[in-house]
Amino acid sequence: MTRPFQVIYDTDPGVDDAMALYYALAHPDIEVLGITTTFGNVRVEQAAANALYLSALAGQGHIPVTQGVATPLHKASEAPPASIHGADGLGNLPNRVAFDNRLDPRSSAQFIVDMARARPGKITLVAVGPLGNLAAALRLEPRLPQLIRKVILMGGTVLEPGNVSPVAEANIWNDPHSADLVFGAGWKLTMVGLDVTHQVILPVALFRKIAAQQRHCATDTLLHAVNFYADFYSGLYPHVATVHGCFGHDVLAFIYLTNPEFFVCESGRMRVAVDGLAQGQTMLRRKPINYPQAGWDDNVPEVHACMEVQAEACKQVLEHTLMAPWLNTGAPSGQSHEL
Amino acid sequence: MTRPFQVIYDTDPGVDDAMALYYALAHPDIEVLGITTTFGNVRVEQAAANALYLSALAGQGHIPVTQGVATPLHKASEAPPASIHGADGLGNLPNRVAFDNRLDPRSSAQFIVDMARARPGKITLVAVGPLGNLAAALRLEPRLPQLIRKVILMGGTVLEPGNVSPVAEANIWNDPHSADLVFGAGWKLTMVGLDVTHQVILPVALFRKIAAQQRHCATDTLLHAVNFYADFYSGLYPHVATVHGCFGHDVLAFIYLTNPEFFVCESGRMRVAVDGLAQGQTMLRRKPINYPQAGWDDNVPEVHACMEVQAEACKQVLEHTLMAPWLNTGAPSGQSHEL
Repeated sequence: MTRPFQVIYDTDPGVDDAMALYYALAHPDIEVLGITTTFGNVRVEQAAANALYLSALAGQGHIPVTQGVATPLHKASEAPPASIHGADGLGNLPNRVAFDNRLDPRSSAQFIVDMARARPGKITLVAVGPLGNLAAALRLEPRLPQLIRKVILMGGTVLEPGNVSPVAEANIWNDPHSADLVFGAGWKLTMVGLDVTHQVILPVALFRKIAAQQRHCATDTLLHAVNFYADFYSGLYPHVATVHGCFGHDVLAFIYLTNPEFFVCESGRMRVAVDGLAQGQTMLRRKPINYPQAGWDDNVPEVHACMEVQAEACKQVLEHTLMAPWLNTGAPSGQSHEL
Repeated sequence: MTRPFQVIYDTDPGVDDAMALYYALAHPDIEVLGITTTFGNVRVEQAAANALYLSALAGQGHIPVTQGVATPLHKASEAPPASIHGADGLGNLPNRVAFDNRLDPRSSAQFIVDMARARPGKITLVAVGPLGNLAAALRLEPRLPQLIRKVILMGGTVLEPGNVSPVAEANIWNDPHSADLVFGAGWKLTMVGLDVTHQVILPVALFRKIAAQQRHCATDTLLHAVNFYADFYSGLYPHVATVHGCFGHDVLAFIYLTNPEFFVCESGRMRVAVDGLAQGQTMLRRKPINYPQAGWDDNVPEVHACMEVQAEACKQVLEHTLMAPWLNTGAPSGQSHEL
């Protein structure tokens, strides 16, 4: 039976990316058609390796994984944030089980285009890294916005302070030119940004509870990664440290997919500052005013931006989803990364 | 007896500039040492003529008025917003009384420097237009930040949507390079921006009441100008139209001077986006985070930004101040601009 949400997951794993992948794999309403990787939290080669590893670890090694863009569209590459996600993107795993799943030979952009053409109007793109693969796909197939059901992206911020500058969020800042193309492409798009992700603090204890329930190397690995990630956030934000927690960031893009009722959105034209001190800022036109500043004219399509979220409801659906039996019994037990 | 607040008023009159000037002249604690003019709401020649006219009309033709910068520091000039302030900056006055006060021959920047040297540590700069005169004064006298008591400026916005773009306010947008120099100069500075000025809606009826009380050409002229200004704002914002009102903008800089207890401020490093789509945005670093984006390092001095205001208290002090007897009985009665 077809699941309600057919998804291509564009990602740069990354700890919260791993959390989001496992939420998607665990959720009964989501079918992950493919995992398309990009540079971002790690180099693209590492991102692709992590996507292969995480899916095989969960017994889902059959899901196609592609490797995508290695660099931003115009700006120079920023250094991957090893202090946040670990040098390997997964909290510096002490060892990895060997699996034999291999990359799909297509670029991430080509995979997105092929799938969209094959299932027109069916696929949701959930994109949680820099947006270079989506921008590249738009160049391969200009009709892509008509072929895709909708885009949900984790990135950007409207009112909440940024995490790479006072006004910019890391995913958008890593490739602002691609992001501006994606916001302006004319598809149904919802931005899940820091305005909501900074409201949802996930304690490490939640992932410890999940790992104890599942007794599986996939959730053990997730626990290891989240623990590393929480050390970073707890060092930065006292209110996060009180629960030794982290933000959910990427997983909220999937929770928006399954439970949009937890969110309050605003709609409007969105542009991205591509250079200067505001580089990477997502600017939402919140009032229907004709501004004298150029760049806000009528042909900019409107998108949705999440502004408020029911944090407790998000935590509950995350826990409920990852606590249920979702890991194949035939999955490899592997070596544990338990703490 | 010396009044507590010795002020140089840097302005581009402008309707709310006129309102602010009359508040300053009416307030028993403020001494206006000089009026320095700039381009902005009107060309600088018109700004200077309006400053001469407004002060003479109020019987204060002895106050020095200077003409300052005519253009932004780097960007091309924007057209003056005649639909907001009128082509003459005062709501298209039907006629003007002739006065014989003349400009002080110094540039606005030189006047600021001369006065600051003569009264070190005493003078507050209240700047309510683009900040080119202050930037020019800093080049004439690099020690100016040590000679000035403090700077209060109307301009910019942190969270409230802008009025010339979704993120930028007009005064800063008109000369963003000068604004960035002024925010970074190292003096005690408070920004009174749209975050608070958009909270204070002044009905035309208030100025009608003041004009009826004073029976003076100065307050008649203010009523004429405010009525024009309110037409613009009431056309743009339904909640302003319900009272046929306008925002107080510039007068709030003086109310902050006399009644800082009405305001809640945040402090932090402030930078200005000087070009691109975010041009003119005032970006406040609201969290003590070391960001990877360049431009936010430790040598950026902190300033204060008003984030909340007691709107009713502001309206009351404005009404109380302008209703009291402040217009010289020997002032010219002139021709009325009453509606």
